[in-house]
Amino acid sequence: MNVIFKLSIILAVFLLIWFLPVPSGIEPNGIHLFAIFCATIIGLILKPVDMGGVVFVGIVITALTGTLTIKESLSGFSNDTVWLILSAFLISRGFMKTGVGKRVAYIFIRLFGRTTLGLSYSLIMSEFILAPAMPSNTARSGGIFYPIIRSLCSAYGSEPDKSPGKIGSFLILAQYHADVIISAMFLTSMAANLLIAEFTKNITGYEIQWTTWILGAIVPGILSLLLVPLVIYKITQPEIKKSAKSKTIADEELKKMGKMKKNEKTMLVIFLFILSVWITSNFHNVHVTTVALFGVALMIILGVLNWSDILGERNAWDAMIWFGGLIMMADGLSKYGVISWFSGNVSNFLINFPVSLALILMLVIYFYSHYGFASMTAHITALFPAFLGVAMSAGAPPLLAALALAYFSNLNASITHYATGPAPIYFNSGYVDLIKWWKIGFIVSVINVIIWIGIGFPYWKFCGFW
Amino acid sequence: MNVIFKLSIILAVFLLIWFLPVPSGIEPNGIHLFAIFCATIIGLILKPVDMGGVVFVGIVITALTGTLTIKESLSGFSNDTVWLILSAFLISRGFMKTGVGKRVAYIFIRLFGRTTLGLSYSLIMSEFILAPAMPSNTARSGGIFYPIIRSLCSAYGSEPDKSPGKIGSFLILAQYHADVIISAMFLTSMAANLLIAEFTKNITGYEIQWTTWILGAIVPGILSLLLVPLVIYKITQPEIKKSAKSKTIADEELKKMGKMKKNEKTMLVIFLFILSVWITSNFHNVHVTTVALFGVALMIILGVLNWSDILGERNAWDAMIWFGGLIMMADGLSKYGVISWFSGNVSNFLINFPVSLALILMLVIYFYSHYGFASMTAHITALFPAFLGVAMSAGAPPLLAALALAYFSNLNASITHYATGPAPIYFNSGYVDLIKWWKIGFIVSVINVIIWIGIGFPYWKFCGFW
Repeated sequence: MNVIFKLSIILAVFLLIWFLPVPSGIEPNGIHLFAIFCATIIGLILKPVDMGGVVFVGIVITALTGTLTIKESLSGFSNDTVWLILSAFLISRGFMKTGVGKRVAYIFIRLFGRTTLGLSYSLIMSEFILAPAMPSNTARSGGIFYPIIRSLCSAYGSEPDKSPGKIGSFLILAQYHADVIISAMFLTSMAANLLIAEFTKNITGYEIQWTTWILGAIVPGILSLLLVPLVIYKITQPEIKKSAKSKTIADEELKKMGKMKKNEKTMLVIFLFILSVWITSNFHNVHVTTVALFGVALMIILGVLNWSDILGERNAWDAMIWFGGLIMMADGLSKYGVISWFSGNVSNFLINFPVSLALILMLVIYFYSHYGFASMTAHITALFPAFLGVAMSAGAPPLLAALALAYFSNLNASITHYATGPAPIYFNSGYVDLIKWWKIGFIVSVINVIIWIGIGFPYWKFCGFW
Repeated sequence: MNVIFKLSIILAVFLLIWFLPVPSGIEPNGIHLFAIFCATIIGLILKPVDMGGVVFVGIVITALTGTLTIKESLSGFSNDTVWLILSAFLISRGFMKTGVGKRVAYIFIRLFGRTTLGLSYSLIMSEFILAPAMPSNTARSGGIFYPIIRSLCSAYGSEPDKSPGKIGSFLILAQYHADVIISAMFLTSMAANLLIAEFTKNITGYEIQWTTWILGAIVPGILSLLLVPLVIYKITQPEIKKSAKSKTIADEELKKMGKMKKNEKTMLVIFLFILSVWITSNFHNVHVTTVALFGVALMIILGVLNWSDILGERNAWDAMIWFGGLIMMADGLSKYGVISWFSGNVSNFLINFPVSLALILMLVIYFYSHYGFASMTAHITALFPAFLGVAMSAGAPPLLAALALAYFSNLNASITHYATGPAPIYFNSGYVDLIKWWKIGFIVSVINVIIWIGIGFPYWKFCGFW
């Protein structure tokens, strides 16, 4: 397909939606923004120019057509999640530059490197252990695990441009999807889960306890965590599957590296400092992005990174523009009534079905509506109360409906590369192209939906949720 | 001076101001932000790390100390002036990449290149002609003239890292300071001049006409425009002073370049399109930043720049962070009462002087208080009404006070590299280091103050302003 043809398709989508009759309840700007959002997403798939360029043009169109003010159009660039993502790239850069990433990678390889699958499970296990104490999944998976995994890929000689299939695309995808599942499993493993508990209390009167949450999640969660990496393994077929000599090789490499150098130590201390401040955030309430940026500031002051390294971190600027632009548009869709119009229609539609079918349909719609969101928190804020309300008035068991929606609020992040903070980080590593990301995301989403409905519902009966 | 020593000085300044007793009228956050701002400025001068790094740390400290919320701390990155500056860098990149910049440069050289001084005056003259129709001085000088001048420097073989003294530092400084003077000369050559007219009407009842404004500005303005480039020429001593063969060389180079290539034509059309939309902004009201970003979007779609060019434009990301950070802090100083506390104290101080001396003192204080601002508009909004009010109650002639303040509102932008939108653009070209920028800025400021008070006041008597 040549560029002109691709642009024509994008333009056609844009014009078609732009000139739709405006339904009552949506402001005209809402429909116009929806037109720009859809055209941008189509643009991401068709790629007439690079992804960043597509979103850049989308942002400009929001301002040029007067759909948003220039202030609103640019608002994504000061979004705190965007700057947390930037920080993750810079922490990763510090990891690679000082060599500490390589060292940590070889330690992981020595311990768990006998098989690629085992390595991945051990990384996932590590994130699982940290999760209850780190509610920001962007900080946890993007700030802590991404730097390690990125270094691991390089240690295995798997680079995004030359040899992504060696091991990189598998490790990246497995960790990302595991992060999404882990986020669903604890009341405290994703920031907005606490918001869900709050909404549920207000709407149903039930207080979801930490223990209730994990009780409901543990069985389907463990199943998903075991199965999903395996499926990704089968699909991506990493060239490096096992290496009997991994321990020897790692030992040799570590020996070659010798003692830790000064910059390596500095970076490691900063990394552990960031980690410990994140884990203790309950006690001091310093914003997760502030901590990350402070870590980067320390890296600058202590000379681990110089300013030129930062300006040269293209992945960071790229993510800032495309993710910042998408998060801005998605926010606007809520603001101009598109989302509430959507939930109203869903409610009208579901009223025709018996309660059990209505609940399942609702969960599936809720799940896949995440194609329109660039943040779990935004999705939860915009749709969770409305959907739980619909379930209640349809007569669904309150705790069942609340928890199922709660889990799905996290699991839905598998589907896109902009679904939640860690997505742009893992995606922008460059190991997996967009089409593959979306395809595998969809496959994983189906697996998760089947597990969490098919096994979840009977299991929750057993738990006494309904 | 080693890094530790520099950091200690910065820390000392920070702590000293941080723990000052909070004067009534300022919120504690105001004093804290002032401490961070001053420490950042000292940091810019001492440079323990690169400028961007200094401001980055400053931004982090605003959030880490709880002086600002993380949202406020990051707000500079979605500032529309910041994105206009980014666009200017990208337009300039398109100019250089396609070769159209080189072509325009050689045409300028052929016409005016016999002497370096003549070349500079011709560029200044061109900006003067455009000025009445382009109220955004950032768009005008940064978006239109910076790309041309940057290409001119390269055409002369003057590059920022190797040979800035050849001609680059002179052309850059001369045009920047001319832009500042030109901004002062027309009611419509700087966006906030219209705001000044509005304030003046509300406070004094006088309506400043377009003709009144230029009448008062034409004599001191022309003097400044003639003298200032000459002084900069003497200070910077460009190695290339005259070239008798400039016409021949330019002809040859243009011949070598041959006919315009497709990308060159595309870039030129986009450039002229941006220019014409900017000039006609009275009729359509599209925001100046939107126009610039749309120009960049066209460059992306039409293949003049690819996404990788944009991500690699380090100057742009650098300016975004350091200028975005400074503009955010300066905005905060107004918000938390530091600026109004300052203007109150000035008013109390001036009350002790006879009216003529009070007026002159006030003008000088108003001028140099611009060290604390990162935008003319912000300075005008925060201080113009208060200072004009003080002048009125001291018994100064209203039109004189209003116009003198009006001109000084623009001229004060000579002093720093963050004073107004074009400053970070010209400064980030890399031809002039910070100390030199500030030094020459101060010299130019003294010249302008002397001309506009020493010759301005008698001339304005003649004009009937007092």
